[in-house]
Amino acid sequence: MAIKLSELAKKLQCDFVGEDCLIENVADINRAEKGDLAFISNVKYQSSLSVTKASAVISKQEWLQGSTVSALISDDPRLVFAKAATLLNPVVAPSSGIATSAVIAPDAVIADSATVDANAVIKAGAHIGEHSYIGSGSVIGENVSIGQYSYLNANVTVYANCIIGDECILHSGVVIGADGFGFVKDNDAYFKVPQLGRVRIANHVEIGANTSIDRGALQDTIIGEGVKLDNQIQIGHNVEIGEHTVISACTCIAGTVKIGKFCLFGGSVGVRDNIEITDNVMITGRTLVSASILEPGSYSSSTPMDETANWRRNAARFRTLDKMARKLNKLEKMLSEKI
Amino acid sequence: MAIKLSELAKKLQCDFVGEDCLIENVADINRAEKGDLAFISNVKYQSSLSVTKASAVISKQEWLQGSTVSALISDDPRLVFAKAATLLNPVVAPSSGIATSAVIAPDAVIADSATVDANAVIKAGAHIGEHSYIGSGSVIGENVSIGQYSYLNANVTVYANCIIGDECILHSGVVIGADGFGFVKDNDAYFKVPQLGRVRIANHVEIGANTSIDRGALQDTIIGEGVKLDNQIQIGHNVEIGEHTVISACTCIAGTVKIGKFCLFGGSVGVRDNIEITDNVMITGRTLVSASILEPGSYSSSTPMDETANWRRNAARFRTLDKMARKLNKLEKMLSEKI
Amino acid sequence: MAIKLSELAKKLQCDFVGEDCLIENVADINRAEKGDLAFISNVKYQSSLSVTKASAVISKQEWLQGSTVSALISDDPRLVFAKAATLLNPVVAPSSGIATSAVIAPDAVIADSATVDANAVIKAGAHIGEHSYIGSGSVIGENVSIGQYSYLNANVTVYANCIIGDECILHSGVVIGADGFGFVKDNDAYFKVPQLGRVRIANHVEIGANTSIDRGALQDTIIGEGVKLDNQIQIGHNVEIGEHTVISACTCIAGTVKIGKFCLFGGSVGVRDNIEITDNVMITGRTLVSASILEPGSYSSSTPMDETANWRRNAARFRTLDKMARKLNKLEKMLSEKI
Repeated sequence: MAIKLSELAKKLQCDFVGEDCLIENVADINRAEKGDLAFISNVKYQSSLSVTKASAVISKQEWLQGSTVSALISDDPRLVFAKAATLLNPVVAPSSGIATSAVIAPDAVIADSATVDANAVIKAGAHIGEHSYIGSGSVIGENVSIGQYSYLNANVTVYANCIIGDECILHSGVVIGADGFGFVKDNDAYFKVPQLGRVRIANHVEIGANTSIDRGALQDTIIGEGVKLDNQIQIGHNVEIGEHTVISACTCIAGTVKIGKFCLFGGSVGVRDNIEITDNVMITGRTLVSASILEPGSYSSSTPMDETANWRRNAARFRTLDKMARKLNKLEKMLSEKI
Repeated sequence: MAIKLSELAKKLQCDFVGEDCLIENVADINRAEKGDLAFISNVKYQSSLSVTKASAVISKQEWLQGSTVSALISDDPRLVFAKAATLLNPVVAPSSGIATSAVIAPDAVIADSATVDANAVIKAGAHIGEHSYIGSGSVIGENVSIGQYSYLNANVTVYANCIIGDECILHSGVVIGADGFGFVKDNDAYFKVPQLGRVRIANHVEIGANTSIDRGALQDTIIGEGVKLDNQIQIGHNVEIGEHTVISACTCIAGTVKIGKFCLFGGSVGVRDNIEITDNVMITGRTLVSASILEPGSYSSSTPMDETANWRRNAARFRTLDKMARKLNKLEKMLSEKI
Repeated sequence: MAIKLSELAKKLQCDFVGEDCLIENVADINRAEKGDLAFISNVKYQSSLSVTKASAVISKQEWLQGSTVSALISDDPRLVFAKAATLLNPVVAPSSGIATSAVIAPDAVIADSATVDANAVIKAGAHIGEHSYIGSGSVIGENVSIGQYSYLNANVTVYANCIIGDECILHSGVVIGADGFGFVKDNDAYFKVPQLGRVRIANHVEIGANTSIDRGALQDTIIGEGVKLDNQIQIGHNVEIGEHTVISACTCIAGTVKIGKFCLFGGSVGVRDNIEITDNVMITGRTLVSASILEPGSYSSSTPMDETANWRRNAARFRTLDKMARKLNKLEKMLSEKI
């Protein structure tokens, strides 16, 4: 798809400077060729503007001084670039209809404009909304409800009774609604606690590959509007995640955790069970959240990387940290008495 | 399903006090309505007994003083609640039979009362026991044996020759019997070590979504009776896990690890290869088990969470811990010589 | 399959000593029976040579003194064992052809000697090379290219346009080419950055169960020749991994990371985004790589395990580490001034 820069400027509501040209696609500024639109998001890349082969760039006004490249002007070049990339690479709407190899329960309701791809399975009572897509090999359980314009890639599994909103994207390997991990000791064995809740996913949620979200035990597990979950994440039963919270890959959230709105989690974060994290909290990668966080801010744990030989010496001392602190206090006291 | 409280008491072998009533389902004590059975498991929730709208509760005798709510009496209210929830929410046995879209090898043996759901695949020589269920899209490899009353949810994969016992539950995305991670350096590349063992899973085992258990290299990987594995767990080749051990989500167990009976692992635990953990060991969340544990008890590693600014200062000092310890010892010596 | 030891020696290009015998399979030296070939890889297992029931062993020459067991001589017994195991357990080539239940787009190209198993789905424009195998329930997206002799186990998903080389092995639950995790803040919500790159996987790569590799944002995500990835690994968008690098389970690699050749990662390693790791780097298990590594060597982080009671005392002091260091420096100064 090709479009004139002037026309793109209109669609993206940007000013543009320089000569008009034809834009065919987006590219990284250092690899761009003729026909490409690139961007810079930081003054430190300003020098790229004079050497890029891109036909046009997206930049803040102030970074363009001395440059002759055609440009779209924006205070948020990265956002405009994302929007341009979306315009130039429209998602091909799947041709609606039900593949002959799909297995659809007689009383499932599939909207006319929805697509069910090859070998997908839709169980009794399920409802697939207008323009939604169910990928090959995906299995949609009994009475599941999926809204409009949602896109479930191949080999997704949704257990019975779960609810997925509009314009959601679920990647392959996602499992929604498996049983929460609940057992009670019964003499020398464990008795399974029935997991009677559901998973309810609001609109505009994206869920990465191989992520799993367990159903609630008594209430529901709830994923709020606009939440973005990366790959390989584990969400335990009864968890609630507030609107527009973003969680990076391999994070593990235990049961009955309540997370606020607009939080940002790095990768491989761990959150223990039965705690609460308020709105606007940032957790850096690899942190173990072992207690509730009631004040917005940034929180961390973990230790820094070192060469193994150094690390080994220091790590060994970790086991004597309390002894060191006591000795230090004793010396301080001795010294102050002597002076 | 509705049942009289008096009848429920009989089935659960509890005493009951107060007026008889009709119980329709279980609920959290703070959200319960008429017809619900709730429970408290701790004296600190005693005050809920006077305000709950539940028709009845499960409680220890001593917490009921002053309360007029109908109650089942138990010293383990949580267990009785789990049993009541199970009674009130019976799992609907899948209607036995083989879906027309399932692909069954001619010499696979499917018990008459077993179910193979839509688009599942059963390979040659596999055996599915009485009342077991193979979910949609699941693939059961050659010569796999699955016992009675086991329930494999949708999109489970079991590799050839693995053995699964009776009354097991495998959740979606589980992979049993993939090759262990074994390679030998061969000049400048790696040569794959054939993984010739199997995975053997005993009875009453539950395995969470997207968990993978590798087959053994020469011997088998063994999961003992009643073991409960949460989601997103990795179990390496040749691992043995003893009876009734419970492991939380995202735990990573390397190869040739032997874990005892009745252990309890928190989430995101790591266990290095070729070590042994004895019976009755508790490992707290996020711990890295870097050596064998030969004494029962509770073990931990990791560091506490802090505000990022504080954490950064302290974490930086971690790299000088050995130097600090040496300096401290030197000062102590100097001071003792002066006194 | 049975073979004479003398013949095996020829095929493996080893000397052999002792009586010739018939070898039926490989086994662990402590569990071996008549007909088995075992090995020792360390002088500390030398005593096993005199008690093993194996018909023959693989050993270094020098460890055989005083032993009468038939033996293959090698300076790398583990490698010869792996090769013997491979010879004695040949992988049965799947019978080529397309299962009737597989769904193949009309313009997909499947080589004559390739196999597409039951209920697999091959989308438009995909190309499956000679002798490659696509397992049951696997879904191969539009225009995907898979080379020769590659083996995709059941329930693998490959997104559109990705490229997989020759002689690769992908285990069940693997997801190749899901969208990278890219969003830009747009007022109070997030705007999805289109992920326009592909995943390109070179030859002789093995990828473990439930591992996911995201497609690039603008460029491609690249997995080099001979790379071995264990289970449950997450590889973010735009990552490049050099030839013959080996990464253990549950490792999480964030976006735009460049990793060199011949690196070795332990399990549960985390690598933050936008950094570079040079060739020949070893990262020990559970390390968080928070900055580029430009020198070959071994690197670590994390803290050692301890009994929970001890750990708790020491971990609490971690939060005062900076204060301790300052106090220590003050005491040192005071003391030096007094002397």
